Amino acid sequence: MSATSREGVVIVGSKPPLNYVTACLSLFNSGAAEVKIRARGQAICRAVDVVGLLRKGFVKDLKVRDISIGTQEFNLAGRSSRVSTMDIVLLKPDK
Amino acid sequence: MSATSREGVVIVGSKPPLNYVTACLSLFNSGAAEVKIRARGQAICRAVDVVGLLRKGFVKDLKVRDISIGTQEFNLAGRSSRVSTMDIVLLKPDK
Repeated sequence: MSATSREGVVIVGSKPPLNYVTACLSLFNSGAAEVKIRARGQAICRAVDVVGLLRKGFVKDLKVRDISIGTQEFNLAGRSSRVSTMDIVLLKPDK
Repeated sequence: MSATSREGVVIVGSKPPLNYVTACLSLFNSGAAEVKIRARGQAICRAVDVVGLLRKGFVKDLKVRDISIGTQEFNLAGRSSRVSTMDIVLLKPDK
């Protein structure tokens, strides 16, 4: 995230959920009003876990501003593949 | 779904995504204006895949009315566990 941006992005992959929780927390602490959590395929469940953990243990009145789902298409060795994507926009409660 | 209800619920589990696609389609065809897709834990990614498949191949202008995420707590042999949940409400385009 650049210093002027008010929004941070956390891309959820295959690491343990707590890693992404810490990433979100440090973005909020460095002044981001919104944090967007992005995930593809199997990582989508982990992204939802991250929001659950944040809500339960770290930011009590965290708001979920928006959730969107979609599909991304790409060519892999001449074959077209599809993967589901999800974006969750979190809002810091006091902003 | 009862005959008088205008909303159907499809609970996504561990079967192949196409099974749930067919379930959604038959609910829409039997007159449901809305179909709610429910999933927990690992099945959340599959629920997003189901929506992607429906949009891509079956109901071209399907609308996603609402997506909500949450956490469900339960006691398993004296230990409390948490699992993430997701509800996706789909709207038939012509309704």
